[in-house]
Amino acid sequence: MIEPFDDTYFMKKALQEAEAAFEKGEIPVGAVIVIDNRIIARGHNLTETLTDVTAHAEMQAITAAANFLGGKYLQKCTLYVTLEPCQMCAGALYWSQISKIVYGTRDMERGCINLKTKLHPKTIITGGVMEEEASGLLKRFFIEKRNLN
Amino acid sequence: MIEPFDDTYFMKKALQEAEAAFEKGEIPVGAVIVIDNRIIARGHNLTETLTDVTAHAEMQAITAAANFLGGKYLQKCTLYVTLEPCQMCAGALYWSQISKIVYGTRDMERGCINLKTKLHPKTIITGGVMEEEASGLLKRFFIEKRNLN
Repeated sequence: MIEPFDDTYFMKKALQEAEAAFEKGEIPVGAVIVIDNRIIARGHNLTETLTDVTAHAEMQAITAAANFLGGKYLQKCTLYVTLEPCQMCAGALYWSQISKIVYGTRDMERGCINLKTKLHPKTIITGGVMEEEASGLLKRFFIEKRNLN
Repeated sequence: MIEPFDDTYFMKKALQEAEAAFEKGEIPVGAVIVIDNRIIARGHNLTETLTDVTAHAEMQAITAAANFLGGKYLQKCTLYVTLEPCQMCAGALYWSQISKIVYGTRDMERGCINLKTKLHPKTIITGGVMEEEASGLLKRFFIEKRNLN
């Protein structure tokens, strides 16, 4: 069976968001939120542009998805994000009661898994989708940044 | 020595924000951010009004303080908040590198202390300032809400 709307399909869309962040000089992380195979929100890291530590890709996508749905809970939604969410974003996802989180690459130091951020009991988290592309983009960003300084 | 600008003084200002939330039918939590005895940001919970789980008092105050300062780090700032921050807000405070967090009353179930959210190593957290007023306002809110339903 051909399934055009699989995790890879949506992670590619999140990666496009991460690339948009990269082009703005932001740490390249991107996210999309999906319901019934439809993207209802997109976001990419804008912490430098907005001078705001809360402007992570996921936070913007959560706000945009709730706005689209007209309700603050994202119970039937899946978040695709290129980097494992941090404590702040996982904490926001807890409140949103989102169904599923799919991340690209792990964040061993600042990610919610090793820091044991509590997710909602209804939330499933899984990862490793397009991991090399997601981590490769981050590595390229930090190498270019180091060379500029 | 008379010290007009003590923790109680600023927590009263946070409580005024919590009361503003109460009047809007929001769970009454308020926050102010202070630098050099000057309030540079205020916020109160607006999750219902904005249909947005991320619209906690602290999140708005963090964004407003960074906007005021023109920089995203709040290294010399103190946050006064009527309720112990949740994982999301503590996660945002981690990124902000804030100096000090002073909360009013504990949140045993969803607060960052019991959930062990990681704070920045430079951040001090303390609480119990005007605890009765902060918890009393929350209790009154939930009693009134229950009676309405």
